[in-house]
Amino acid sequence: MKKLLNDPQNVVRESLAGFAAAHADLIRVCFDPVYVVRADAPVSGKVGVISGGGSGHEPMHGGFVGRGMLDAACPGQVFTSPTPNQMEAASSAVEGGAGVLQIVKNFTGDIMNFEMAAELCQARGIEGQAVIVNDDVAVEDSLYTAGRRGVGTTVLAEKICGAAAERGYDLSRVAAVGRKVIGKGRSMGMALSPCTVPAAGKPSFVLGQNEMEMGIGIHGEPGRERMPLSKAREVTAYMAETILADLPFRTGDRVIAMVNGMGATPLMELYLVNGELERILAARQIAVVRRLVGNYITSLEMAGCSITLLQADDELLSLWDEPVRTPALRWGI
Amino acid sequence: MKKLLNDPQNVVRESLAGFAAAHADLIRVCFDPVYVVRADAPVSGKVGVISGGGSGHEPMHGGFVGRGMLDAACPGQVFTSPTPNQMEAASSAVEGGAGVLQIVKNFTGDIMNFEMAAELCQARGIEGQAVIVNDDVAVEDSLYTAGRRGVGTTVLAEKICGAAAERGYDLSRVAAVGRKVIGKGRSMGMALSPCTVPAAGKPSFVLGQNEMEMGIGIHGEPGRERMPLSKAREVTAYMAETILADLPFRTGDRVIAMVNGMGATPLMELYLVNGELERILAARQIAVVRRLVGNYITSLEMAGCSITLLQADDELLSLWDEPVRTPALRWGI
Repeated sequence: MKKLLNDPQNVVRESLAGFAAAHADLIRVCFDPVYVVRADAPVSGKVGVISGGGSGHEPMHGGFVGRGMLDAACPGQVFTSPTPNQMEAASSAVEGGAGVLQIVKNFTGDIMNFEMAAELCQARGIEGQAVIVNDDVAVEDSLYTAGRRGVGTTVLAEKICGAAAERGYDLSRVAAVGRKVIGKGRSMGMALSPCTVPAAGKPSFVLGQNEMEMGIGIHGEPGRERMPLSKAREVTAYMAETILADLPFRTGDRVIAMVNGMGATPLMELYLVNGELERILAARQIAVVRRLVGNYITSLEMAGCSITLLQADDELLSLWDEPVRTPALRWGI
Repeated sequence: MKKLLNDPQNVVRESLAGFAAAHADLIRVCFDPVYVVRADAPVSGKVGVISGGGSGHEPMHGGFVGRGMLDAACPGQVFTSPTPNQMEAASSAVEGGAGVLQIVKNFTGDIMNFEMAAELCQARGIEGQAVIVNDDVAVEDSLYTAGRRGVGTTVLAEKICGAAAERGYDLSRVAAVGRKVIGKGRSMGMALSPCTVPAAGKPSFVLGQNEMEMGIGIHGEPGRERMPLSKAREVTAYMAETILADLPFRTGDRVIAMVNGMGATPLMELYLVNGELERILAARQIAVVRRLVGNYITSLEMAGCSITLLQADDELLSLWDEPVRTPALRWGI
């Protein structure tokens, strides 16, 4: 295992310490229990938007804490759900009198712990709702999930729900916006190489020199099929066609598109995939009206990429365009 | 070689096509000859700021084209200098009547080609100046360089010169600001793993399972020493102490710090290194007043990181804080 760390058991806390030092103008990190929170939390009268999940997917979620996006994020150990008491503490820290929305990726541990946290919050009088992201079209059930996994659409849901909360929407309306995003967003990923959880010390799976895994999960869990390595054109078409057929997306649709790197993929390759994707969508007269290309939801140093498409309407686009100021996503301010 | 590409010979052009599609609001890409230019170029009355170099270091330089930073960037083939006619065409495209500043990294090919471009521009009546970035403290001469290599300080010079030009400084003053940045900036990098140039198809060097290369160049060229893998604390201290002793930086200094990923390093590890760096600087009472943590000047999918420190004064900080709007760096607008 070749990594820049000190003690594999302490990598999350040490990384968060460096994250806190880097972005003290935007966020604070609490260490007992561990969560990342907006520097100005709680914002009075605003719905608090929180998320969380295992670490190792950075910048998600901590990198999306800040004005116009998340109020707090709860990082678990690497690829391990955070605990209910982290989520309860984060909820309390962001509760400004308008309730708290949880954005939860559909993984069994996350769902269970966010539900327990919601009960703890309810007992303390914090009103709450949850939206469950389950956008991965690759497989129906998987190693850590009943139903579809929650992946790239989470990034878009956090941006759009964050903007809705910032605009002053009430809790039900922010949750409704979140459910709309989840209903209209679809993703799929692939890997060229595995990743190594620091505490495990060895790769979580093995791929041959001429193999790739299509439909991989963000923890390296198996995907849809292991295939011979092929060209970016074919890889992109495979993912795009699977995504497009699923919703389905149709001629005339407007979409927000994300081409996301899994961690070790050069930007040069991500842009090349974006070019392929745009060609496929243009041929179907689907208009890409907003884009993200880069590392947003990663799997440590896995090489590969994922594609997310969100069928967008005027409301979602208008919320997308609202200013955002977080460590990893920033525009307008 | 496992990469997301179609034809290894065509990776730069195909990637630029996807880059152009992704950021049509900010930049245009010309393909004959190849350069990236601000969508609104030329800006009348403003000094044009251009840079360029081999591809494979993305987001540098094309990702830094936009308001408040570069007016144009010339990408060569992977790890290969762009040609004089690319630079001449880019200079013509951004010339708004106030001359053009070239920001050149100190590599033999780049220097030669930018000088030839300057002569071509002069013959066409375009006033020009050049600043040469040579901030790498690792080695004195190297495989592709006489004198020190130009690395991370390039990113800071492009931001700060871009802001100076946007403010309306004349050519001599923008160049003077650039020389000040170069005089006060120092960098060093290290690698945990090599990278593979697509057209070569195999790694440019080999590192053992327990080895790292300290002082590596951004093309995988050898560094200062090959050492046994050690902890992030020791790796960071090695780089930071070498940088600090070189200028030298002193108690009471204010610095802009960049912890930069080489391409395949998880953000989790970069933030951990940032935490170590901030601890070292705090102990010496050197104040980190601005920061970048992420992938800014990469070497394809190399794993590792670099540190850049810039001794900043009020002028440089004020220029740093000016709004910037590029694909890879954006704040304030």
